[in-house]
Amino acid sequence: MKLLILGQGNVGTHLYTAFTAKHVDCTLHSSREGLDNLPAADCILYAVRDDALEQVAAQVHTDRRVLHLHTSGTMPLTVFGDDKPHAGVFYPLQSFSKSRPIEDYSSIPVFFEARSIDDVSAIYSLALMITSHVYEVSQQDREQLHLCGVLVNNFPNLMFRIAEDIARRIHVPFSTLLPLIDETAAKVHQLSPCEAQTGPAKRGDQNVMNRHLQLLQDPQIQELYRLCSTLIQKLPS
Amino acid sequence: MKLLILGQGNVGTHLYTAFTAKHVDCTLHSSREGLDNLPAADCILYAVRDDALEQVAAQVHTDRRVLHLHTSGTMPLTVFGDDKPHAGVFYPLQSFSKSRPIEDYSSIPVFFEARSIDDVSAIYSLALMITSHVYEVSQQDREQLHLCGVLVNNFPNLMFRIAEDIARRIHVPFSTLLPLIDETAAKVHQLSPCEAQTGPAKRGDQNVMNRHLQLLQDPQIQELYRLCSTLIQKLPS
Repeated sequence: MKLLILGQGNVGTHLYTAFTAKHVDCTLHSSREGLDNLPAADCILYAVRDDALEQVAAQVHTDRRVLHLHTSGTMPLTVFGDDKPHAGVFYPLQSFSKSRPIEDYSSIPVFFEARSIDDVSAIYSLALMITSHVYEVSQQDREQLHLCGVLVNNFPNLMFRIAEDIARRIHVPFSTLLPLIDETAAKVHQLSPCEAQTGPAKRGDQNVMNRHLQLLQDPQIQELYRLCSTLIQKLPS
Repeated sequence: MKLLILGQGNVGTHLYTAFTAKHVDCTLHSSREGLDNLPAADCILYAVRDDALEQVAAQVHTDRRVLHLHTSGTMPLTVFGDDKPHAGVFYPLQSFSKSRPIEDYSSIPVFFEARSIDDVSAIYSLALMITSHVYEVSQQDREQLHLCGVLVNNFPNLMFRIAEDIARRIHVPFSTLLPLIDETAAKVHQLSPCEAQTGPAKRGDQNVMNRHLQLLQDPQIQELYRLCSTLIQKLPS
């Protein structure tokens, strides 16, 4: 099968690397130009920004047999018009950065959706080329997974930024926090997040929490500390 | 040097493992009984709960030459009375769980404080037995580091708990989130947390953020989502 990836951003570049490593006949193409003269392909993977997806798809005219798949965690399948009966979603749940190579794509889960049941096996086979973790999910569940991605990646990274700022102010290198950051991730391979929870909020140590609130100067970061501590105590354990 | 570790909890157990692996003459002893009849030691490491520390230390009577060190991120050095002229703090910044072995103690930073300048080299040497990352910090800076620990460990783990709950509701195993959790930690070894920040808040994608707020049902978790998103956009990049 001939695969064409549209979009040379973080997702497109990484998917291109993953598929070519598995000897899939794959072309990486800009989503910004030459859409009226695309190389022939059996499947087109759209790796473009959510807000550009519908417009890019509308400019792509192919044989009706071509399979069109977007890679967004949030956009519906209906961004593909009726001229594309074979359409679906191919959503890899990972944080891709061009500047950071991924060593092992095979552990990354791919969540897919198909417009027609006839396309399920084709999409499934495509995903299995790069990973052994393939799940068919509905639009709504994919949105929930995208939300999970925000929770386990974007928000922890925000905490790292706040901590980096504190470390900088006391002239301690951010790298001293890395073993703890690594252990935080490693722990939940073995313990449930609930079992892995430690710290002053978990212990109900109000003295320490009050002291930390004094140390934080930004009112919104103080509020974040309060809210996280409240939730750590409130969530069922 | 003979080392006595008081407290058989997570910290005491792990420090005992780390020091014995380096062939330090080390004894692990309960902090709850037999404090009036402790084995002889050159240095006593107190690995006890913050709220028990002062009381435990008061019950320990030794030769005045013995070095007394506590392991708390928040308690001051003054929990040790005048009968202990050689006193200090030995704070390893890591999240220890008895049920999880640590493979490599040598990357864990130890932050120390000494009552007298005469004890600095002894504490430094002791820490160097198990790690190559040893820093002398003030009480106030140690509290800031403890706060950093809460930010990079306790709060990300809270996010994992919220995500686990969502994944459970849509019948997707939590393990599908682990590659993203691992990559979140791995990324900041190479990129600064600021450079590593991605997601709808970073992109200013209000549609996605509104949709995520709809999906979250708990008002406090919605507030957490709003606050994190605001801070991601507000913090200097």
